[in-house]
Amino acid sequence: MHLKMISSHRIFNGRQIKYRHHSSVLNCDMTFSLYLPESSSNHSKTALIWWLSGLTCTDDNFSQKGAFQKYASEKNLAFVIPDTSPRGATADSEDWDLGQGAGFYLNATQDPWKENFQMYDYLTKELPELIYPLIPNFSGKESIMGHSMGGHGSLIVGLKNPERFSAISAFAPILNPTQVPWGKKAFTAYLGQDPSKWNEWDATSLIQAPSAYRPPIMITQGTADEFYKTQLKENTFLTAAQKTNAEVIYQKEKGYDHSYFTIATFIEKHIAFHYQQLSQ
Amino acid sequence: MHLKMISSHRIFNGRQIKYRHHSSVLNCDMTFSLYLPESSSNHSKTALIWWLSGLTCTDDNFSQKGAFQKYASEKNLAFVIPDTSPRGATADSEDWDLGQGAGFYLNATQDPWKENFQMYDYLTKELPELIYPLIPNFSGKESIMGHSMGGHGSLIVGLKNPERFSAISAFAPILNPTQVPWGKKAFTAYLGQDPSKWNEWDATSLIQAPSAYRPPIMITQGTADEFYKTQLKENTFLTAAQKTNAEVIYQKEKGYDHSYFTIATFIEKHIAFHYQQLSQ
Repeated sequence: MHLKMISSHRIFNGRQIKYRHHSSVLNCDMTFSLYLPESSSNHSKTALIWWLSGLTCTDDNFSQKGAFQKYASEKNLAFVIPDTSPRGATADSEDWDLGQGAGFYLNATQDPWKENFQMYDYLTKELPELIYPLIPNFSGKESIMGHSMGGHGSLIVGLKNPERFSAISAFAPILNPTQVPWGKKAFTAYLGQDPSKWNEWDATSLIQAPSAYRPPIMITQGTADEFYKTQLKENTFLTAAQKTNAEVIYQKEKGYDHSYFTIATFIEKHIAFHYQQLSQ
Repeated sequence: MHLKMISSHRIFNGRQIKYRHHSSVLNCDMTFSLYLPESSSNHSKTALIWWLSGLTCTDDNFSQKGAFQKYASEKNLAFVIPDTSPRGATADSEDWDLGQGAGFYLNATQDPWKENFQMYDYLTKELPELIYPLIPNFSGKESIMGHSMGGHGSLIVGLKNPERFSAISAFAPILNPTQVPWGKKAFTAYLGQDPSKWNEWDATSLIQAPSAYRPPIMITQGTADEFYKTQLKENTFLTAAQKTNAEVIYQKEKGYDHSYFTIATFIEKHIAFHYQQLSQ
């Protein structure tokens, strides 16, 4: 649990900090990034938003291209940005959509992945213990958002822990991974051939399960997203959500694609949505 | 002069576009990026801001990390972001602060550089002819800003062409390159051993030359900038500017460093300064 600060940059009166640590859950060294607003050390209490990135990303992409710090600073919100998979001398694949950079935020049950690819436990058990003490005047309130594979990650982590997260949001998320190529490939590798074992990691399955309470969900999907029609289809998810009266705001944005340029454009809106829920 | 669009992304109701073209001035293929606000095709006329990047950068760094598009969109401003040097099969060095990625926005006179390293002519003669026609409803008004080596570039290009640029601004600029290690190394290579040939490319020399008019200048310098004390010292420049009554707003920002995190924090302020001058 030894934490090492790798870098720290002042931005919008706060600090963008990068840490390295050894993860006992993942059996490897990991990095994560944390944005702390300056105000967190004095006035109102600081809530925490988790950001989960997409395929091939590290914690740097959102830190550098997400343009979120202005709004986090204004609303006194901390952001934690984990990496997207175990790293280093762990199992990997030559494909960009499997292995390192493609952890899918689940717990793998299959060899050779299960030794390291326990991202769900890392996010929900190990990282919180490390991160909470780093936030001065932490309110104890949390919410979660992400992009693409990480948008799906925010949905599964949020829906599995409804009492913990005040809001869930996603940019261009995979919504029904058991039915699309990215998800089928990863779930077969990490969880095995039997699709019945996949459902507990599929947002569309999770949202139709009985639940006393679900955090409200906001989703932004660009219509010019090159992965929209093959990987990110929304129909089964929205139909399932309707059946269980889950609160889902699904917004299509004309001409926007799968890049961080879309995230930068709509991050203010997502943060406003989270802030409202975190302030209740 | 054949232009090829490499990529185009919608962001903040505008488009971030990347082009490739052959430069006859630089004798090589080049890329540049252009932000066009959506409104440029209908209501008020669109002014153009030039952004010059620092050592090692390409046109991608500011496009992805500069967080400028929101304000450019709101104020109906186009941005052009050239590369920082000739590229490809041209002269180069193994050092990160000389050769490709380090063109210093001047015209080289020495072998092997002079065949390609004519960045000043590229910026002031070739690129304008390419870029003006790409801006719908162009107002004809221009200003220039940049970072580090590119902050110095914006000063020399702006001060040499005071009738063309309505404003100049810079983040952490080299201000007196003939007196600091980065500048001495580059100027010796590109311009030769005789320091008297260097002055026409030094902002401190240029600002003390007689001039009927100089564009107003804004400079932001972070106090935690790792290059501040060795490469970016302001005293000789500010003293020279005072002697000639040049209008210079020099702002030190506590705790900010040399990174794009600083640029993202203060770009709104710089754009507001440019907009005011471009609107007159």
